[in-house]
Amino acid sequence: MSEPIDAHTVREWGERYSNWGRWGADDERGTLNFITPERILAACALPRRGRVISCALPFDDRGPQSGLARRHNPIHYMLAHAGDALAGAQDHLAGGFNYADDAVTMPLQCGTQWDALAHVFYDGRMYNGRDVRLVTSRGARENSIDRIADGVVGRGVLLDLPRLMRRPWLEDGTRILPQDLDACAEAFGATIESGDILLVRTGMMKRCLEQKSWQGYCGGPAPGLSLHCARWLYEREIAAVATDTWGVEVIPNETPDCFQPLHMISLRNTGLLLGEIFQLDDLAEACAEDGNYAFLFTAPPLPITGAVGSPINPLAIK
Amino acid sequence: MSEPIDAHTVREWGERYSNWGRWGADDERGTLNFITPERILAACALPRRGRVISCALPFDDRGPQSGLARRHNPIHYMLAHAGDALAGAQDHLAGGFNYADDAVTMPLQCGTQWDALAHVFYDGRMYNGRDVRLVTSRGARENSIDRIADGVVGRGVLLDLPRLMRRPWLEDGTRILPQDLDACAEAFGATIESGDILLVRTGMMKRCLEQKSWQGYCGGPAPGLSLHCARWLYEREIAAVATDTWGVEVIPNETPDCFQPLHMISLRNTGLLLGEIFQLDDLAEACAEDGNYAFLFTAPPLPITGAVGSPINPLAIK
Amino acid sequence: MSEPIDAHTVREWGERYSNWGRWGADDERGTLNFITPERILAACALPRRGRVISCALPFDDRGPQSGLARRHNPIHYMLAHAGDALAGAQDHLAGGFNYADDAVTMPLQCGTQWDALAHVFYDGRMYNGRDVRLVTSRGARENSIDRIADGVVGRGVLLDLPRLMRRPWLEDGTRILPQDLDACAEAFGATIESGDILLVRTGMMKRCLEQKSWQGYCGGPAPGLSLHCARWLYEREIAAVATDTWGVEVIPNETPDCFQPLHMISLRNTGLLLGEIFQLDDLAEACAEDGNYAFLFTAPPLPITGAVGSPINPLAIK
Amino acid sequence: MSEPIDAHTVREWGERYSNWGRWGADDERGTLNFITPERILAACALPRRGRVISCALPFDDRGPQSGLARRHNPIHYMLAHAGDALAGAQDHLAGGFNYADDAVTMPLQCGTQWDALAHVFYDGRMYNGRDVRLVTSRGARENSIDRIADGVVGRGVLLDLPRLMRRPWLEDGTRILPQDLDACAEAFGATIESGDILLVRTGMMKRCLEQKSWQGYCGGPAPGLSLHCARWLYEREIAAVATDTWGVEVIPNETPDCFQPLHMISLRNTGLLLGEIFQLDDLAEACAEDGNYAFLFTAPPLPITGAVGSPINPLAIK
Repeated sequence: MSEPIDAHTVREWGERYSNWGRWGADDERGTLNFITPERILAACALPRRGRVISCALPFDDRGPQSGLARRHNPIHYMLAHAGDALAGAQDHLAGGFNYADDAVTMPLQCGTQWDALAHVFYDGRMYNGRDVRLVTSRGARENSIDRIADGVVGRGVLLDLPRLMRRPWLEDGTRILPQDLDACAEAFGATIESGDILLVRTGMMKRCLEQKSWQGYCGGPAPGLSLHCARWLYEREIAAVATDTWGVEVIPNETPDCFQPLHMISLRNTGLLLGEIFQLDDLAEACAEDGNYAFLFTAPPLPITGAVGSPINPLAIK
Repeated sequence: MSEPIDAHTVREWGERYSNWGRWGADDERGTLNFITPERILAACALPRRGRVISCALPFDDRGPQSGLARRHNPIHYMLAHAGDALAGAQDHLAGGFNYADDAVTMPLQCGTQWDALAHVFYDGRMYNGRDVRLVTSRGARENSIDRIADGVVGRGVLLDLPRLMRRPWLEDGTRILPQDLDACAEAFGATIESGDILLVRTGMMKRCLEQKSWQGYCGGPAPGLSLHCARWLYEREIAAVATDTWGVEVIPNETPDCFQPLHMISLRNTGLLLGEIFQLDDLAEACAEDGNYAFLFTAPPLPITGAVGSPINPLAIK
Repeated sequence: MSEPIDAHTVREWGERYSNWGRWGADDERGTLNFITPERILAACALPRRGRVISCALPFDDRGPQSGLARRHNPIHYMLAHAGDALAGAQDHLAGGFNYADDAVTMPLQCGTQWDALAHVFYDGRMYNGRDVRLVTSRGARENSIDRIADGVVGRGVLLDLPRLMRRPWLEDGTRILPQDLDACAEAFGATIESGDILLVRTGMMKRCLEQKSWQGYCGGPAPGLSLHCARWLYEREIAAVATDTWGVEVIPNETPDCFQPLHMISLRNTGLLLGEIFQLDDLAEACAEDGNYAFLFTAPPLPITGAVGSPINPLAIK
Repeated sequence: MSEPIDAHTVREWGERYSNWGRWGADDERGTLNFITPERILAACALPRRGRVISCALPFDDRGPQSGLARRHNPIHYMLAHAGDALAGAQDHLAGGFNYADDAVTMPLQCGTQWDALAHVFYDGRMYNGRDVRLVTSRGARENSIDRIADGVVGRGVLLDLPRLMRRPWLEDGTRILPQDLDACAEAFGATIESGDILLVRTGMMKRCLEQKSWQGYCGGPAPGLSLHCARWLYEREIAAVATDTWGVEVIPNETPDCFQPLHMISLRNTGLLLGEIFQLDDLAEACAEDGNYAFLFTAPPLPITGAVGSPINPLAIK
């Protein structure tokens, strides 16, 4: 794995690990297709404790965004609240009924989130060969997040790399190789199966939370998946992969002439759902506690019509 | 059930069907506490087909809102898209990498949604006796939606009233009584158990979608739960109840001097999670198909800090 | 003026009435250049009464927008208010100091507004020959509204066509020809001079306000300037023209194969500032009262960096 | 002026320098009433050069806000742009017509701005004795910014304190006393007259721009008006006062037990319009150049219904 890789490699591997056409020309679900009814039933059989663990970072103004790519943290506005009742502004409601109501303004990928298959592209094409010109100011007409409204439910597997390596977190720039994923799964007794949703923990979020600083979290150096994982993810028929980092991939990227190359291969060609900014610390504790790293996992996106991503609250059910 | 009911009744029943203190003075989860680990495991054992059905209405500008209470439909903005790539505005990204990104501005209760326990109140108190002054322009400091970030997972039961009544939808103003709920469950072979999440279908959304008009959907006359359901919901230890209408309750309300009285009793006193604007038509089809009206149900709210509601994509797993 | 006109005419006239290069290759002010220091001084000498009249429609949810081109009315959110003080949420402020604060979400052209020179374009070019690819998701890098931050101040002239025609408003579809503009100015004793800002009143807004309906106001049939005004506006060296309609031009447009052709000629080629949704009724009353249709006029845009339009509060000072 | 002042002083002076009732119980314009028609005409006679200078800081994401009081910088979204045209998303528009369109989300007081008379209050009352309960989540029902839609036009006077003191800017914490204002006016040959709009330059914004850091600008230590100016502003019948700082007043405030005491006296009691975050550097240059510190000044607020402030683009016309 030491040969130099670059933008040419990305395009070559992109063709090699492509699922375009695999589920028909109309497919907009990509690797979620690996989650067959049988696998859903098998995933439902996993829970042993009846415990639910959220993998979402709270959505608020203490979030990780600092303006990169014009992403800001969620802005929460109240439309009505108890103060209105005290001021008499709800007296028109009969019977003493009072209420609070609110709104949010947020980039869809500012926090815990799924990338839609329309999120990245190159050479004029996105997943399944679709023309990128379908993605304009009016949103994505195809491959948008609402096309997977009945996802994501399946078998989740946590790969807790810091625990494997007996350190609090992986250093920035640490690349995670396919053999690391295999070793981690094996060490914790978790098999990797077709249709699995992999949650790869690097500890980076824990570090930021402990150090009370998101400095560098968004777009800066980070531990993450090596580009060499593209083949592994493809061959293992992984349905989705998510990390506790901003962008799944190791940064600096291994391709000096190509930004986020794993996105280019896996999201565009493999049709692999990518999850980012997952909060995996509580789940890691729970898995360590019971020694069980596979669980029922559900993370339904909001079906915002034409959206290229969605904030989510992923739940692991153990 | 023919005695007149009014705001006094509401307060009296509110005390009678109160769960304040039942799970401790610190409790912010209300009836979700009925969903014990055992019940979660039992719910996970329900699926037979491995099929997932979304109960969310798409979030977009064709939604039901028309300005009532200053709620508008979601506004979706693109932050970057393929047109930018075509215009050369993404040339700074190496390797031909292009991306699309987006944002949303939306009232949290403009579409398919959970009400948080901080959503309604009277006499200065909200669920579990908390002072309403905790709910201000900075959001709800207690009883907010983020406090149930590890919910909602459990046994869902669909009560498809139009199917029971062999009509396409219930007429506006139709009140649904406890015996209707029982009859419906029985007719379709679904028991009602402690910790259940009830999805009550009235057909009103189907009517609006078929007639291509949301006229009157928000706040206008609607079929819905009678106030007499308050006791039933309390005694049956229901964890959550949701409908395909704007506000769960029958409108006009049965209490001429009190607005949305069931909210006042069930949400504030019983601590019952209420879901609104659920799209239950696909689920109804699926249940009719296999004759099975109970399923694993999951509808995680976005943990927006301090929010009094959350848009959701509820999933039924059969 | 009876020969048929179409998209070819538009391009031909566009070349004919072009000011590209007239004020240098770097110019981003267009016809505002006609407002020389001398003309500003002359405009300042006009007021006789010391009266100020606003030409803005209030910005609120009762505005004219109904979703065309995804424009919505302004959404006003409070960030803090008296209710917070009553709820004790401002007790951290010393000395009993309380405050209210607020925010807005609004399309920049949803109400009374200037179009920036980057607002319309064709054949890949906008005003002064600039490449349209300068206008992307990150805003307009040139010809944006902030480039005229030190405008608009000059001599305003009201052309009150309904008053001339002794009717409450012009019918939808009425085209206003150059001779109508001349006749109107003459009838009310107002000369037209180089650098003038013309406010053309059709009465359409008055009709909508009286009938309490904006139906058709945005994008529907409307009275407005004929395409034949393009030459007149160019030759008279008009600095800006604004109307009480949605789009300045007569609708249906006179060119069956070309949308908003006057924008294409006047804004893109002449570099003429266009103002829309002006509330001219109060001003019309005041002018009729004193018989003076020329005044000092000021309508500074908000210098929102990269914006292609700006809400404004235009003031006539008589 | 060395006696200690505190919250008691504020209330006492508040009564002393009150204009409540001065212009009738219905008045919502406060000291703008000092700008009589005569004064407007006199202001119009001031310009000698025909030059217009904007006093607005650009509205964009490089603005001064950093989250204090939940104020963020403006967020600019494109609704349509040239990339859409390139992607074919505007092909439905006839004749090759293309356009760009945009929107903004912004706190109304995040940049150059007027405070409305409903912005601050204490003891349950705001300007002219109005009940603060008029200011709720639905905005201010009285004293809102739209009530001064036909302002602000009058005689502006720049008081350039750094120039007087021959230094680039006043140090943080420097309090500006009435005698400083008098001395500055006198030094630069500008009289102070009833109805004047005073622009007080401290140089703080210049420092932030030069040092490329807004650190501390919002709410931190700053030069500004001493509370002792309250009487001077009242007696001189000043119509409005604005500074190049976040909050007009010296910070730390002179009243240890009272936040922003000058706001409490001058805005609430005197009914004095306050302007903040004005960019006065260009104007200072122009005044130094021609030695003329009085000018025609116009800064119309956007009449956002019920708003408690408005972004503005103030223009000085010399």
